Amino acid sequence: MGNAEKFDWVRGFTCDFDLINGLSKTAESTKRYLSQMKGMYADDAAFDKMLEGGNDPLVYEFYEMGAPELPGDLAFGTSITYPGKVGDEYFMTKGHFHTILDTGEVYYCLSGHGYMLLESPEGDWSLQEMTAGEAVYVPKRYAHRSINIGDTPLVTFFVFRGDAGHDYGTIETKGYRNLVVEKDGKAVAVPNPKWGE
Amino acid sequence: MGNAEKFDWVRGFTCDFDLINGLSKTAESTKRYLSQMKGMYADDAAFDKMLEGGNDPLVYEFYEMGAPELPGDLAFGTSITYPGKVGDEYFMTKGHFHTILDTGEVYYCLSGHGYMLLESPEGDWSLQEMTAGEAVYVPKRYAHRSINIGDTPLVTFFVFRGDAGHDYGTIETKGYRNLVVEKDGKAVAVPNPKWGE
Ligand SMILES: [Mn+2]
Ligand SMILES: [Mn+2]
Repeated sequence: MGNAEKFDWVRGFTCDFDLINGLSKTAESTKRYLSQMKGMYADDAAFDKMLEGGNDPLVYEFYEMGAPELPGDLAFGTSITYPGKVGDEYFMTKGHFHTILDTGEVYYCLSGHGYMLLESPEGDWSLQEMTAGEAVYVPKRYAHRSINIGDTPLVTFFVFRGDAGHDYGTIETKGYRNLVVEKDGKAVAVPNPKWGE
Repeated sequence: MGNAEKFDWVRGFTCDFDLINGLSKTAESTKRYLSQMKGMYADDAAFDKMLEGGNDPLVYEFYEMGAPELPGDLAFGTSITYPGKVGDEYFMTKGHFHTILDTGEVYYCLSGHGYMLLESPEGDWSLQEMTAGEAVYVPKRYAHRSINIGDTPLVTFFVFRGDAGHDYGTIETKGYRNLVVEKDGKAVAVPNPKWGE
Protein backbone atom coordinates (compact mmCIF):
# COMPACT_ATOMS: atom_id res chain seq x y z
CA MET A 1 0.00 0.00 0.00
CA GLY A 2 1.39 3.41 -0.96
CA ASN A 3 1.74 6.20 1.56
CA ALA A 4 -1.16 8.21 0.10
CA GLU A 5 -3.65 5.39 0.85
CA LYS A 6 -2.40 4.94 4.42
CA PHE A 7 -3.44 8.37 5.60
CA ASP A 8 -6.72 10.27 5.95
CA TRP A 9 -6.06 13.70 4.50
CA VAL A 10 -9.73 14.68 4.93
CA ARG A 11 -10.27 13.85 8.63
CA GLY A 12 -6.67 13.99 9.93
CA PHE A 13 -4.07 11.46 11.03
CA THR A 14 -0.79 10.97 12.82
CA CYS A 15 2.45 9.47 11.54
CA ASP A 16 5.69 8.76 13.42
CA PHE A 17 9.09 10.14 12.44
CA ASP A 18 11.99 9.32 14.75
CA LEU A 19 13.34 12.51 16.32
CA ILE A 20 16.95 11.40 15.89
CA ASN A 21 17.28 9.30 12.73
CA GLY A 22 14.13 10.66 11.02
CA LEU A 23 12.84 7.24 9.98
CA SER A 24 9.15 6.28 10.10
CA LYS A 25 7.78 2.90 11.10
CA THR A 26 4.54 3.65 9.24
CA ALA A 27 5.42 5.46 6.03
CA GLU A 28 7.77 4.27 3.31
CA SER A 29 10.67 6.46 2.22
CA THR A 30 11.93 7.34 -1.24
CA LYS A 31 15.64 6.53 -1.58
CA ARG A 32 18.27 8.24 -3.71
CA TYR A 33 21.41 6.24 -4.43
CA LEU A 34 24.62 7.74 -5.76
CA SER A 35 24.07 6.22 -9.23
CA GLN A 36 20.95 8.39 -9.56
CA MET A 37 23.01 11.58 -9.27
CA LYS A 38 25.34 11.19 -12.24
CA GLY A 39 26.90 14.50 -13.28
CA MET A 40 25.68 16.40 -10.22
CA TYR A 41 29.01 16.25 -8.35
CA ALA A 42 32.02 18.14 -9.67
CA ASP A 43 34.51 15.25 -9.60
CA ASP A 44 33.30 12.69 -12.17
CA ALA A 45 36.32 10.44 -11.69
CA ALA A 46 35.71 10.19 -7.94
CA PHE A 47 32.01 9.58 -8.64
CA ASP A 48 32.75 6.68 -11.05
CA LYS A 49 35.25 5.19 -8.61
CA MET A 50 32.69 5.09 -5.81
CA LEU A 51 30.36 3.01 -7.98
CA GLU A 52 33.03 0.43 -8.89
CA GLY A 53 32.47 -3.20 -7.96
CA GLY A 54 28.72 -2.79 -7.81
CA ASN A 55 28.78 -0.33 -4.91
CA ASP A 56 26.01 2.26 -4.82
CA PRO A 57 25.80 4.17 -1.53
CA LEU A 58 22.52 5.56 -0.26
CA VAL A 59 23.00 9.34 -0.36
CA TYR A 60 19.62 10.45 0.99
CA GLU A 61 16.05 9.42 1.62
CA PHE A 62 12.86 11.34 2.27
CA TYR A 63 9.13 10.81 2.65
CA GLU A 64 6.50 11.45 0.00
CA MET A 65 3.31 11.12 2.01
CA GLY A 66 0.84 11.60 -0.85
CA ALA A 67 -0.66 14.91 0.26
CA PRO A 68 -3.39 16.20 -2.05
CA GLU A 69 -1.78 18.47 -4.63
CA LEU A 70 -3.96 21.40 -3.62
CA PRO A 71 -3.10 24.89 -2.33
CA GLY A 72 -4.87 24.34 1.03
CA ASP A 73 -3.04 21.10 1.87
CA LEU A 74 0.50 20.68 3.14
CA ALA A 75 3.04 18.03 2.27
CA PHE A 76 5.39 17.04 5.08
CA GLY A 77 7.88 14.43 6.20
CA THR A 78 11.52 14.02 7.03
CA SER A 79 14.59 14.18 4.82
CA ILE A 80 17.77 12.30 5.75
CA THR A 81 21.06 13.09 4.03
CA TYR A 82 23.80 10.64 4.94
CA PRO A 83 27.41 11.59 5.70
CA GLY A 84 29.93 11.11 2.91
CA LYS A 85 31.83 12.83 0.13
CA VAL A 86 32.40 12.47 -3.61
CA GLY A 87 36.02 13.59 -3.86
CA ASP A 88 36.06 16.62 -1.56
CA GLU A 89 32.37 17.48 -2.16
CA TYR A 90 29.92 16.64 0.58
CA PHE A 91 26.91 14.37 0.11
CA MET A 92 23.83 16.41 -0.77
CA THR A 93 20.32 16.16 -2.15
CA LYS A 94 19.61 16.88 -5.82
CA GLY A 95 17.85 20.09 -4.89
CA HIS A 96 14.99 21.69 -6.76
CA PHE A 97 12.90 24.74 -7.43
CA HIS A 98 9.18 24.49 -6.77
CA THR A 99 7.10 24.30 -9.94
CA ILE A 100 4.94 27.02 -8.42
CA LEU A 101 7.97 29.21 -7.88
CA ASP A 102 6.19 31.53 -5.46
CA THR A 103 5.91 28.93 -2.66
CA GLY A 104 8.27 28.62 0.30
CA GLU A 105 9.18 25.72 2.57
CA VAL A 106 10.11 25.18 6.21
CA TYR A 107 12.82 22.77 7.40
CA TYR A 108 13.40 22.00 11.06
CA CYS A 109 16.71 20.27 11.78
CA LEU A 110 16.38 17.32 14.16
CA SER A 111 19.98 16.08 14.13
CA GLY A 112 23.25 16.36 12.27
CA HIS A 113 25.16 19.29 10.85
CA GLY A 114 24.95 20.81 7.41
CA TYR A 115 23.73 23.58 5.18
CA MET A 116 20.67 24.46 3.21
CA LEU A 117 21.97 25.93 -0.05
CA LEU A 118 19.55 28.56 -1.39
CA GLU A 119 19.74 30.05 -4.89
CA SER A 120 17.32 32.25 -6.82
CA PRO A 121 16.94 32.23 -10.63
CA GLU A 122 18.76 35.60 -10.64
CA GLY A 123 21.75 34.10 -8.84
CA ASP A 124 21.26 35.39 -5.30
CA TRP A 125 22.44 32.62 -2.98
CA SER A 126 23.26 31.79 0.61
CA LEU A 127 24.14 28.90 2.88
CA GLN A 128 21.85 28.51 5.91
CA GLU A 129 23.56 26.51 8.62
CA MET A 130 21.61 23.64 10.12
CA THR A 131 22.22 22.04 13.49
CA ALA A 132 19.76 20.21 15.75
CA GLY A 133 17.01 22.61 16.82
CA GLU A 134 17.54 25.13 14.02
CA ALA A 135 14.63 25.92 11.69
CA VAL A 136 15.34 27.20 8.17
CA TYR A 137 12.95 29.31 6.14
CA VAL A 138 13.30 28.58 2.42
CA PRO A 139 11.72 31.62 0.81
CA LYS A 140 9.61 31.67 -2.31
CA ARG A 141 11.57 31.50 -5.59
CA TYR A 142 14.71 29.87 -4.10
CA ALA A 143 16.04 26.48 -5.14
CA HIS A 144 17.08 24.47 -2.09
CA ARG A 145 19.49 21.61 -1.46
CA SER A 146 20.55 19.95 1.82
CA ILE A 147 24.29 19.34 2.28
CA ASN A 148 25.67 17.16 5.07
CA ILE A 149 29.03 18.44 6.34
CA GLY A 150 29.07 16.27 9.49
CA ASP A 151 29.79 12.66 10.44
CA THR A 152 26.18 11.69 11.23
CA PRO A 153 22.95 11.79 9.20
CA LEU A 154 21.54 15.28 8.61
CA VAL A 155 17.87 14.92 9.53
CA THR A 156 15.19 17.57 8.88
CA PHE A 157 11.40 17.74 9.18
CA PHE A 158 9.96 19.68 6.22
CA VAL A 159 6.61 21.21 5.25
CA PHE A 160 5.53 22.77 1.94
CA ARG A 161 2.30 23.53 0.09
CA GLY A 162 0.61 20.47 -1.40
CA ASP A 163 0.51 21.91 -4.91
CA ALA A 164 4.05 23.41 -4.92
CA GLY A 165 5.49 20.73 -7.21
CA HIS A 166 9.14 19.94 -7.91
CA ASP A 167 11.27 21.25 -10.73
CA TYR A 168 14.42 19.11 -10.64
CA GLY A 169 15.27 19.69 -14.30
CA THR A 170 16.65 23.20 -14.00
CA ILE A 171 19.20 22.13 -11.39
CA GLU A 172 20.05 18.90 -13.22
CA THR A 173 20.72 20.89 -16.40
CA LYS A 174 22.49 23.98 -15.06
CA GLY A 175 23.55 23.02 -11.55
CA TYR A 176 24.01 25.43 -8.67
CA ARG A 177 26.48 28.29 -8.95
CA ASN A 178 28.39 26.99 -5.93
CA LEU A 179 29.52 23.72 -4.36
CA VAL A 180 30.37 22.95 -0.77
CA VAL A 181 33.66 21.11 -0.39
CA GLU A 182 36.03 20.18 2.40
CA LYS A 183 39.20 22.29 2.32
CA ASP A 184 41.82 22.10 5.09
CA GLY A 185 39.27 20.27 7.24
CA LYS A 186 36.59 22.95 6.82
CA ALA A 187 33.41 23.19 4.73
CA VAL A 188 33.69 26.01 2.22
CA ALA A 189 31.66 27.21 -0.77
CA VAL A 190 33.51 27.33 -4.09
CA PRO A 191 32.30 28.22 -7.60
CA ASN A 192 30.87 25.23 -9.47
CA PRO A 193 33.12 24.59 -12.50
CA LYS A 194 30.23 22.82 -14.26
CA TRP A 195 27.69 25.59 -13.73
CA GLY A 196 25.59 26.48 -16.76
CA GLU A 197 27.04 23.69 -18.91
CA MET B 1 12.29 44.64 17.91
CA GLY B 2 9.36 42.46 16.91
CA ASN B 3 9.86 38.99 15.47
CA ALA B 4 8.81 40.08 11.96
CA GLU B 5 11.71 42.56 11.72
CA LYS B 6 14.27 40.03 12.96
CA PHE B 7 13.93 37.70 10.02
CA ASP B 8 14.51 37.90 6.27
CA TRP B 9 11.43 36.35 4.68
CA VAL B 10 12.68 37.28 1.18
CA ARG B 11 16.19 35.78 1.26
CA GLY B 12 15.80 33.13 4.00
CA PHE B 13 16.93 32.75 7.59
CA THR B 14 17.33 30.34 10.47
CA CYS B 15 15.84 30.48 13.96
CA ASP B 16 16.45 28.18 16.92
CA PHE B 17 13.73 26.27 18.77
CA ASP B 18 14.87 23.93 21.54
CA LEU B 19 14.04 20.34 20.62
CA ILE B 20 12.86 19.51 24.15
CA ASN B 21 11.28 22.61 25.72
CA GLY B 22 10.45 24.36 22.43
CA LEU B 23 11.79 27.75 23.52
CA SER B 24 13.74 30.07 21.19
CA LYS B 25 16.70 32.20 22.21
CA THR B 26 16.09 34.47 19.20
CA ALA B 27 12.34 34.90 18.78
CA GLU B 28 9.89 36.17 21.39
CA SER B 29 6.88 34.07 22.33
CA THR B 30 3.25 35.05 22.80
CA LYS B 31 1.96 33.94 26.22
CA ARG B 32 -1.52 32.93 27.25
CA TYR B 33 -2.29 33.08 30.95
CA LEU B 34 -5.27 31.40 32.57
CA SER B 35 -7.07 34.73 33.08
CA GLN B 36 -7.21 35.14 29.30
CA MET B 37 -9.32 31.96 28.96
CA LYS B 38 -12.35 32.92 31.06
CA GLY B 39 -15.36 30.75 30.24
CA MET B 40 -13.42 28.28 28.10
CA TYR B 41 -13.11 25.59 30.79
CA ALA B 42 -16.21 23.77 32.02
CA ASP B 43 -15.66 24.32 35.76
CA ASP B 44 -16.00 28.07 36.37
CA ALA B 45 -15.65 27.68 40.17
CA ALA B 46 -12.35 25.82 39.81
CA PHE B 47 -11.22 28.44 37.28
CA ASP B 48 -11.97 31.34 39.65
CA LYS B 49 -10.28 29.56 42.55
CA MET B 50 -7.05 29.13 40.56
CA LEU B 51 -6.86 32.91 40.03
CA GLU B 52 -7.30 33.74 43.71
CA GLY B 53 -4.60 35.72 45.51
CA GLY B 54 -3.29 37.20 42.30
CA ASN B 55 -2.23 33.86 40.80
CA ASP B 56 -2.38 33.53 37.05
CA PRO B 57 -0.65 30.42 35.68
CA LEU B 58 0.90 30.39 32.23
CA VAL B 59 -1.19 27.87 30.27
CA TYR B 60 0.58 28.00 26.92
CA GLU B 61 2.93 29.99 24.74
CA PHE B 62 3.71 29.97 21.05
CA TYR B 63 5.68 31.87 18.43
CA GLU B 64 4.27 34.38 15.97
CA MET B 65 7.22 34.91 13.66
CA GLY B 66 5.66 37.57 11.45
CA ALA B 67 5.49 35.57 8.22
CA PRO B 68 4.07 37.54 5.28
CA GLU B 69 0.31 36.94 5.15
CA LEU B 70 0.51 35.56 1.64
CA PRO B 71 -0.50 32.20 0.16
CA GLY B 72 3.06 31.34 -0.91
CA ASP B 73 4.62 31.93 2.52
CA LEU B 74 4.49 29.67 5.55
CA ALA B 75 4.14 30.62 9.21
CA PHE B 76 5.95 28.36 11.65
CA GLY B 77 7.16 28.06 15.20
CA THR B 78 6.65 26.02 18.32
CA SER B 79 3.67 25.79 20.66
CA ILE B 80 4.15 24.82 24.30
CA THR B 81 1.16 23.80 26.42
CA TYR B 82 2.05 23.41 30.08
CA PRO B 83 0.81 20.60 32.33
CA GLY B 84 -2.09 21.37 34.64
CA LYS B 85 -5.84 21.11 35.09
CA VAL B 86 -8.83 23.36 35.76
CA GLY B 87 -10.92 21.06 37.94
CA ASP B 88 -10.61 17.77 36.08
CA GLU B 89 -10.13 19.39 32.67
CA TYR B 90 -6.61 19.40 31.22
CA PHE B 91 -4.76 22.57 30.25
CA MET B 92 -5.28 23.35 26.58
CA THR B 93 -4.92 26.07 23.97
CA LYS B 94 -7.89 28.24 22.98
CA GLY B 95 -8.08 26.52 19.64
CA HIS B 96 -9.26 28.08 16.40
CA PHE B 97 -10.48 27.64 12.87
CA HIS B 98 -8.44 29.20 10.10
CA THR B 99 -10.08 32.28 8.59
CA ILE B 100 -9.36 30.71 5.19
CA LEU B 101 -11.15 27.55 6.23
CA ASP B 102 -9.71 25.49 3.38
CA THR B 103 -6.14 25.52 4.75
CA GLY B 104 -4.55 22.73 6.81
CA GLU B 105 -1.69 22.68 9.30
CA VAL B 106 1.09 20.32 10.33
CA TYR B 107 2.18 19.76 13.95
CA TYR B 108 5.23 17.68 14.86
CA CYS B 109 5.38 16.70 18.52
CA LEU B 110 8.83 17.22 20.07
CA SER B 111 8.07 16.23 23.67
CA GLY B 112 5.24 15.62 26.09
CA HIS B 113 1.95 13.75 25.79
CA GLY B 114 -1.42 15.03 24.70
CA TYR B 115 -4.06 15.30 22.05
CA MET B 116 -4.89 17.46 19.10
CA LEU B 117 -8.68 17.92 19.23
CA LEU B 118 -10.09 18.31 15.72
CA GLU B 119 -13.65 19.45 14.98
CA SER B 120 -15.32 20.46 11.72
CA PRO B 121 -18.16 23.00 11.45
CA GLU B 122 -20.51 20.04 10.81
CA GLY B 123 -19.48 18.39 14.08
CA ASP B 124 -17.14 15.66 12.88
CA TRP B 125 -14.41 15.38 15.51
CA SER B 126 -11.49 13.27 16.63
CA LEU B 127 -8.63 13.23 19.11
CA GLN B 128 -5.19 12.71 17.53
CA GLU B 129 -2.71 11.45 20.09
CA MET B 130 0.60 13.24 20.31
CA THR B 131 3.82 11.87 21.77
CA ALA B 132 7.40 12.82 20.93
CA GLY B 133 8.12 11.99 17.29
CA GLU B 134 4.48 11.90 16.18
CA ALA B 135 3.35 14.28 13.40
CA VAL B 136 -0.31 15.31 13.20
CA TYR B 137 -2.04 16.42 10.02
CA VAL B 138 -4.75 18.99 10.76
CA PRO B 139 -6.90 18.87 7.66
CA LYS B 140 -8.59 21.79 5.97
CA ARG B 141 -11.82 22.97 7.64
CA TYR B 142 -11.04 21.52 11.11
CA ALA B 143 -10.71 23.62 14.27
CA HIS B 144 -7.73 22.47 16.31
CA ARG B 145 -6.73 22.68 19.95
CA SER B 146 -3.74 21.17 21.80
CA ILE B 147 -4.48 19.44 25.11
CA ASN B 148 -1.74 18.40 27.54
CA ILE B 149 -2.63 15.17 29.39
CA GLY B 150 0.89 14.54 30.75
CA ASP B 151 3.14 15.85 33.52
CA THR B 152 5.59 17.71 31.28
CA PRO B 153 5.15 20.48 28.68
CA LEU B 154 3.51 19.39 25.42
CA VAL B 155 5.79 20.82 22.74
CA THR B 156 5.01 20.91 19.02
CA PHE B 157 6.57 22.46 15.91
CA PHE B 158 3.84 23.80 13.60
CA VAL B 159 3.59 25.08 10.02
CA PHE B 160 0.62 26.68 8.23
CA ARG B 161 0.03 28.91 5.22
CA GLY B 162 0.99 32.54 5.79
CA ASP B 163 -2.45 33.88 4.86
CA ALA B 164 -4.53 31.24 6.71
CA GLY B 165 -5.57 33.60 9.50
CA HIS B 166 -7.10 32.74 12.87
CA ASP B 167 -10.77 32.62 13.76
CA TYR B 168 -10.83 32.38 17.56
CA GLY B 169 -14.31 33.85 17.89
CA THR B 170 -16.32 30.81 16.81
CA ILE B 171 -14.69 28.63 19.46
CA GLU B 172 -14.88 31.34 22.13
CA THR B 173 -18.60 31.74 21.45
CA LYS B 174 -19.74 28.14 20.93
CA GLY B 175 -16.89 26.05 22.35
CA TYR B 176 -15.97 22.57 21.20
CA ARG B 177 -18.52 19.77 21.38
CA ASN B 178 -16.22 17.77 23.67
CA LEU B 179 -13.82 18.27 26.57
CA VAL B 180 -10.93 16.11 27.69
CA VAL B 181 -10.98 15.41 31.42
CA GLU B 182 -9.22 13.11 33.85
CA LYS B 183 -11.50 10.32 35.04
CA ASP B 184 -10.20 7.43 37.19
CA GLY B 185 -6.67 8.51 36.31
CA LYS B 186 -7.31 8.41 32.56
CA ALA B 187 -7.86 11.09 29.92
CA VAL B 188 -11.35 10.76 28.41
CA ALA B 189 -13.50 12.87 26.09
CA VAL B 190 -16.87 13.93 27.48
CA PRO B 191 -19.61 16.14 26.00
CA ASN B 192 -19.07 19.84 26.73
CA PRO B 193 -22.00 21.01 28.89
CA LYS B 194 -21.43 24.59 27.73
CA TRP B 195 -21.40 23.80 24.01
CA GLY B 196 -23.45 26.15 21.83
CA GLU B 197 -24.33 28.49 24.71
MN1 LIG C 1 11.02 21.88 -1.75
MN1 LIG D 1 -3.91 26.81 13.12
